[in-house]
Amino acid sequence: MATSEKAAYDALPYPRVVVVGGGFAGLAVVNGLAGKPYKVLLIDKQNHHCFQPLLYQVATASLGADSIAHPFRRTVGPMSNVAFRMAAVKKVDPANKQVITDRGTYDYDILVLATGTVTNFFGMEDCERTAMQLKTIGQALDIRSDFLQEFETAVALDDVEEQRRYLSFVIVGAGPTGVELAGALAEIKRSVVKHEYREMDNETMQIVLIDSNDKVLKNFNEASSDRALTYLQELGVNVRLNTRVVGLEDDELMLNDGSSIRTNTVIWAAGVRGASVPGMEAAMDPRSGRYRVDPQNAVEGMPDVYAIGDIAAMRNEEWGDGHPQVAQVALQQGDHLVKNLVRKAEGKEALPFTYKHQGSMAVIGRYRAVVDLGQRSFGGFFAWLVWMFVHVVQLVDFRNRFMVLFNWGWKYLSWRNTIRLIIRPYVRRTNIRLR
Amino acid sequence: MATSEKAAYDALPYPRVVVVGGGFAGLAVVNGLAGKPYKVLLIDKQNHHCFQPLLYQVATASLGADSIAHPFRRTVGPMSNVAFRMAAVKKVDPANKQVITDRGTYDYDILVLATGTVTNFFGMEDCERTAMQLKTIGQALDIRSDFLQEFETAVALDDVEEQRRYLSFVIVGAGPTGVELAGALAEIKRSVVKHEYREMDNETMQIVLIDSNDKVLKNFNEASSDRALTYLQELGVNVRLNTRVVGLEDDELMLNDGSSIRTNTVIWAAGVRGASVPGMEAAMDPRSGRYRVDPQNAVEGMPDVYAIGDIAAMRNEEWGDGHPQVAQVALQQGDHLVKNLVRKAEGKEALPFTYKHQGSMAVIGRYRAVVDLGQRSFGGFFAWLVWMFVHVVQLVDFRNRFMVLFNWGWKYLSWRNTIRLIIRPYVRRTNIRLR
Repeated sequence: MATSEKAAYDALPYPRVVVVGGGFAGLAVVNGLAGKPYKVLLIDKQNHHCFQPLLYQVATASLGADSIAHPFRRTVGPMSNVAFRMAAVKKVDPANKQVITDRGTYDYDILVLATGTVTNFFGMEDCERTAMQLKTIGQALDIRSDFLQEFETAVALDDVEEQRRYLSFVIVGAGPTGVELAGALAEIKRSVVKHEYREMDNETMQIVLIDSNDKVLKNFNEASSDRALTYLQELGVNVRLNTRVVGLEDDELMLNDGSSIRTNTVIWAAGVRGASVPGMEAAMDPRSGRYRVDPQNAVEGMPDVYAIGDIAAMRNEEWGDGHPQVAQVALQQGDHLVKNLVRKAEGKEALPFTYKHQGSMAVIGRYRAVVDLGQRSFGGFFAWLVWMFVHVVQLVDFRNRFMVLFNWGWKYLSWRNTIRLIIRPYVRRTNIRLR
Repeated sequence: MATSEKAAYDALPYPRVVVVGGGFAGLAVVNGLAGKPYKVLLIDKQNHHCFQPLLYQVATASLGADSIAHPFRRTVGPMSNVAFRMAAVKKVDPANKQVITDRGTYDYDILVLATGTVTNFFGMEDCERTAMQLKTIGQALDIRSDFLQEFETAVALDDVEEQRRYLSFVIVGAGPTGVELAGALAEIKRSVVKHEYREMDNETMQIVLIDSNDKVLKNFNEASSDRALTYLQELGVNVRLNTRVVGLEDDELMLNDGSSIRTNTVIWAAGVRGASVPGMEAAMDPRSGRYRVDPQNAVEGMPDVYAIGDIAAMRNEEWGDGHPQVAQVALQQGDHLVKNLVRKAEGKEALPFTYKHQGSMAVIGRYRAVVDLGQRSFGGFFAWLVWMFVHVVQLVDFRNRFMVLFNWGWKYLSWRNTIRLIIRPYVRRTNIRLR
């Protein structure tokens, strides 16, 4: 039976669509093309979709990995015209219409690049070597292990100055990820450290949030930024604006004002760049690493290649060189591309993409959030409820939704981040040349 | 406040009990001594208790790590006379009554060793180097990553013989762990591989269970062993009894009958030995690695040192040199030691331990188990319900219980092992000298 199903897939008389990357954008394309007259192959280097907006909750021990991850094969399993390959793309060959991976070479009639972003260290090699990141579940678990290891080391020390080094957590970049991480760590200081590490003073722990801008959440409106700053300060986060990192050596983080912070943990959330693929250089904006696309998301000068989501840079009046690199754009561009591909199959022409911005939000600490709707903005507990609702309904399946809700409910009742497990100890890299 | 709480703990005028190891035995002692006139320090190299009987379900993607793990600090946090240190014991110094760890040296008045077991490779270095184990959550996640990686590699291959190497899973040792793993993998073959890896024939996957005895579950009664063997064979497990492994080189597992199996995955569940600690050699049975204890669990010739659970070997009429190395013994010896320590504090003499064997059980495949009550035994769906009930009630807290029940319910409804995530790819070690 399996063999005949494979034969059935192979024999589909449809154009072959290869989708690279199963984030919000890629998965929207796969879901949209299920049952449509296309033979689809999804390629991702992970075997699962990761719901990135909640990664920081995995990093801070509120959610387990399986609450926000979903195996791709669970999604595509029931789709008779979709297959999946777990593979790392080594190169795209637009001339021969091929994608070359570590698992084999795949021909395409239509290529959809949805590879997302990687962390941007802006050329600071010492930070790239030593600082932690938050782009994958593995990295989130590293952060979880790290902060728990710092606690366990600090609690066995007698000297408060020594303790402070282990208990200083520095987050670089006050975008949503940095703000949400800082807020969650501040809550851990007030609940977990205070009550379950009684041998030390929880005030020894400090959370520093650094940003080179003069406000946090720089892409939000003024009211939301101000509100977020207030919330962070109320939680005891040391917010240092107009401040840049100039170097990181061992446990010394150097800042542009001449000061430095002794810390074991620097989390880098200061920016991203497009996760570009070899072979596509001609269409890449070298500054952002994103691919220039037309209003139909077709990559400039590359026939039958589309780029969607974070990796795509579509010029538009409202946002300039490209849309914000957020889930909403990825989902909308994915859905729009599906619409255009279906129109194409029906012999109709493609329609231009227009982005409907529905607002931005970020959660700060336990039960507060800011919601920015452009003109209007609001915050507090109600904003947190809105944030929660919006995130839960976006999760891939019922199981994920239920797991997230149960764990949030549990945290609400227990006032503790429960999943404080060091499964794989994190080993910090310092002064080691990686390449 | 934190500082005064520390001072309060330090000032407790009670004898200091150091408990090494927070498995079933050690945790029973900690729970029992909470609020009693002892100053207790729990030392473990992990920061969490692991419910080992369900480890195989983490390895086979039915449960997430946080369903069966519980941070020690959540347990001891509310206990004013108990502290926790995450530390690896380097040595015990019975003469000076000290435990030396990588985080510091701790004095004891009473030492409780509950270090459990490590995998026993019986001197086969090639197996120790290359075979997988199932003693910790990290190892369980390695097995999960490994089998998923084998699937993803196999599905991209055209040659069926090559596929078979990646899809041959060999388990050495048909005790409860081996039997349960084999059954779970057989279910994955029938559900996951058949429906979500449609490009290949699920019959290419084979599960081989090897044991040198002439029956599976050798410590169970005849009826249970026979029933388990039948269940395994019905699930398509290739059970090879009276068979011993003689070598493992790269992907070639050599057996004592001259045959060999090409496989990428050998899981070693063939035996354990005591996780002994340097400094305690005089009391160790060199064959089993366990410490000889008297009927009060006091280690022979070591004043004020107790050994409980798997690491203890108490001579007794029914079981010979030591009790079976199972959770029941550990829990009962832990509880009994608490009783004796409380008696000691009250000036009463210690009572001898007697083990009440309540039966053995093992689950095979999805909804069947065998239950061995000594004289009587039963199997099938009802046995599985009993197995499920007994395991759920033993989990540490409500959250763990709920998570396990929800995930089992979900699996029941979806017929799939859901948590099929490769978070950290597993890298197999071959032909590399570890020491």
